[in-house]
Amino acid sequence: MNQNYMEMALQLAENVAGQTSPNPPVGAVVVKAGRIIGMGAHLQAGERHAERVALDMAGAKATDADLYVTLEPCSHTGKTSPCADAVIQAGIKRVFVATADPNPLVAGKGIAKLREAGVEVTESVSVELAKNLYAPFFHFIKNKTPHVTMKTAMTIDGKIATSKGDSKWVTSEQARLDVHQLRHTQDAILVGVQTLLHDNPLLTTRLPLGGQHPIRVILDTSLRTPESSQIIQNTEAPTWIFCGKYAELSREKLLKKPHVQIIRMQKPQLIVEDILLELGRRGVMTLLVEGGAAINASFVKARAVQKVICYVAPKLLGGIGSLTPISGLDPLMMNEALPLTFESVEMIGPDIKIIAVPKESD
Amino acid sequence: MNQNYMEMALQLAENVAGQTSPNPPVGAVVVKAGRIIGMGAHLQAGERHAERVALDMAGAKATDADLYVTLEPCSHTGKTSPCADAVIQAGIKRVFVATADPNPLVAGKGIAKLREAGVEVTESVSVELAKNLYAPFFHFIKNKTPHVTMKTAMTIDGKIATSKGDSKWVTSEQARLDVHQLRHTQDAILVGVQTLLHDNPLLTTRLPLGGQHPIRVILDTSLRTPESSQIIQNTEAPTWIFCGKYAELSREKLLKKPHVQIIRMQKPQLIVEDILLELGRRGVMTLLVEGGAAINASFVKARAVQKVICYVAPKLLGGIGSLTPISGLDPLMMNEALPLTFESVEMIGPDIKIIAVPKESD
Repeated sequence: MNQNYMEMALQLAENVAGQTSPNPPVGAVVVKAGRIIGMGAHLQAGERHAERVALDMAGAKATDADLYVTLEPCSHTGKTSPCADAVIQAGIKRVFVATADPNPLVAGKGIAKLREAGVEVTESVSVELAKNLYAPFFHFIKNKTPHVTMKTAMTIDGKIATSKGDSKWVTSEQARLDVHQLRHTQDAILVGVQTLLHDNPLLTTRLPLGGQHPIRVILDTSLRTPESSQIIQNTEAPTWIFCGKYAELSREKLLKKPHVQIIRMQKPQLIVEDILLELGRRGVMTLLVEGGAAINASFVKARAVQKVICYVAPKLLGGIGSLTPISGLDPLMMNEALPLTFESVEMIGPDIKIIAVPKESD
Repeated sequence: MNQNYMEMALQLAENVAGQTSPNPPVGAVVVKAGRIIGMGAHLQAGERHAERVALDMAGAKATDADLYVTLEPCSHTGKTSPCADAVIQAGIKRVFVATADPNPLVAGKGIAKLREAGVEVTESVSVELAKNLYAPFFHFIKNKTPHVTMKTAMTIDGKIATSKGDSKWVTSEQARLDVHQLRHTQDAILVGVQTLLHDNPLLTTRLPLGGQHPIRVILDTSLRTPESSQIIQNTEAPTWIFCGKYAELSREKLLKKPHVQIIRMQKPQLIVEDILLELGRRGVMTLLVEGGAAINASFVKARAVQKVICYVAPKLLGGIGSLTPISGLDPLMMNEALPLTFESVEMIGPDIKIIAVPKESD
């Protein structure tokens, strides 16, 4: 076994993260006699799985070769026939797997099938590297709710905007571009109606060479979203507006459009847990929460944040009334804070990008 | 020339930074035929300068050797005789200097003296590395006010304490130890009376194997400092309390002690610029501002911050009334923020330590 090939396969998978939903990103490398004879990634739901792409490239040479694949080959017939069968038919001798597939439709059955057919299988190869990549997928499979990333951007003295709400701009152009790359990888993006009323954001992915737009999710208990807002006028991405039980029907009628759905909840108030379950039912595996401060607070209070991405800009704003990334009810003691672990820190242009995960992460 | 020797000399100087005040930290290395034959640093005002220490170690071997020194050798007789003379007498052939001494008593005269005596002098060796080390010294020489470092510690959502003022603890033990190392390097530490009333801090340097205590400076317009406070009861370090023109004399009498000085200013209110000038007159070259938020704001407003050290803890506190590192008057627009440049980012235990300097730094 050569772990370099698995790292290569993981890189292939990372490159397509965000464009395979509801499938997980998967990469595969076929190796024979020290040469790569096939490689590939799953590009889009409904298209060939990674193993298939790599095996097709290898062709007849795949006989007696090794296959490195980031996720357990599937054993069930979905939109494509089982990958385990394809691996067996190709005559692969040994399979190296980074992580088993927690999907109950697979969950060890793929590996079992391979072994029954006489293929040698080694599990948990570079499994630590795979964990990060599959965290969203595993979270979704386990909880049936989206993996939530909370994104904030603040000055080095903890401010996201002035007391008057001016926030243009906290961070640099480079950091804002990085956010668009992040949006590209997420199924949906969520903001509160306050942010909508204040900033009228477009919430699309704006990358120089294009990118995927997340579904725009708005939490708007009373349907105060203006018809003139960009998320209504712009049809590039779907818009889902969650409202409470008693939101006015007339407002709903005004806002409805081919790209706009109004999702009326059964309770008068919007509850984070209910929203997440509904998004999960609709197949949203990854959700980017972009605030404002009150929305962020409700997600933190519900302990419904799996990742925090914080951009810190090199400036001191000050101001006793300036806004901070998370508001909400006042805790009494510092030890009530939600404990995290820093996962990475890097410079993005002149700014710092910090990634953190909850300490008791799933 | 070999820059490695200058980097070595700079390291020697960095190791003694903070214990040489009012002199700058200086390191020196004597090299002959590719071997180090002398090295040293200036340890304390009144004691041998770095060149002297290194030359003494080299002894008679110094003839025709090279000297690497981080700051221009002095040309005037202070507490010790001029280093330039010692270098000439030792028979040093070539001198490499990182940075000239801006002190008007020296300011090129040391280098001139060496050259007149036939010593070959190369200036600005590794000058970029020396800049950081000498920033406080150069600032003091130029402005006659202390070089100010503002230290803050906050959660990743920008909070320094709950709305009730609980701040125990934002950061880890490792980060707090790092702060004590920082205190060790500073001539004085400054807090407002609010912090005193709320936290009753000791403000000493508490390192496992000891360290130097900074002078404790309290801004207390009306002399509300309680006699029972630790900075009055504890005599380990001097305490200087700045008060306004109209502070009650009876309070002044109650607070006066051998280690406590009351410094009455000529205006009713305490003005940052006046405080800094007075501290400069008293020989304080480096000042650590540890807040709270209102004091920090007044230093930022006065643009009297040369370095910001911010510890960021991996936790989300939230709370609309939770406290942030800098309060003060509310700016209207984000572009009113004081622009900085990040100088370094590192992990200290589980926390992140960020060092930033103002963009138009002196």
